Amino acid sequence: RRSHMAVSYTDPQVSMDLLRAVLQPSFNDDIMAVFQKYHQFFEKAAENVKENVGEDVQTDQLIKEACRNVLEHAKQLFPDGEVKRMGSDLMKRMRPADEDYG
Amino acid sequence: RRSHMAVSYTDPQVSMDLLRAVLQPSFNDDIMAVFQKYHQFFEKAAENVKENVGEDVQTDQLIKEACRNVLEHAKQLFPDGEVKRMGSDLMKRMRPADEDYG
Repeated sequence: RRSHMAVSYTDPQVSMDLLRAVLQPSFNDDIMAVFQKYHQFFEKAAENVKENVGEDVQTDQLIKEACRNVLEHAKQLFPDGEVKRMGSDLMKRMRPADEDYG
Repeated sequence: RRSHMAVSYTDPQVSMDLLRAVLQPSFNDDIMAVFQKYHQFFEKAAENVKENVGEDVQTDQLIKEACRNVLEHAKQLFPDGEVKRMGSDLMKRMRPADEDYG
């Protein structure tokens, strides 16, 4: 019978992604808080671009694209496979040692 | 003469990405701090998977993959183009209003 095999709970990736999905809204809140710190810089840069390039520049879209690029580049903190650049040094800080979160 | 045209400073995307690159290390620190909050959950989940699936499971790689997936999904906070799901509500919180960062 295959009636209840909607999700394979023994697939490691699937198991981890279930947890990821549960934590995502909380992550999103925290990540949004981080981006709020930097929003003014992107805002000013986008306004500058608009002044220099022209009124047809959509500052909102420029800022969103920059934010997506930040997230894409932040993936280098968690490199696939063996140690890549940036990885080794920053990975050490993943250990819950020197700072007192949670 | 084309000797000095290494980067087009009038390209909106390039201009924004220069700022993005400058801010990235600081972003990375803040994002890593966020992930530290959740690291224990991923750690436990990966240990569970290893117990259930077998010793050949690389918990470290599972955790890194989950972290990259969090970042990928967080991009939905900054949707390309018009309003997509998740976007409209969370975008309001980008405005530096209710919380006192930086």
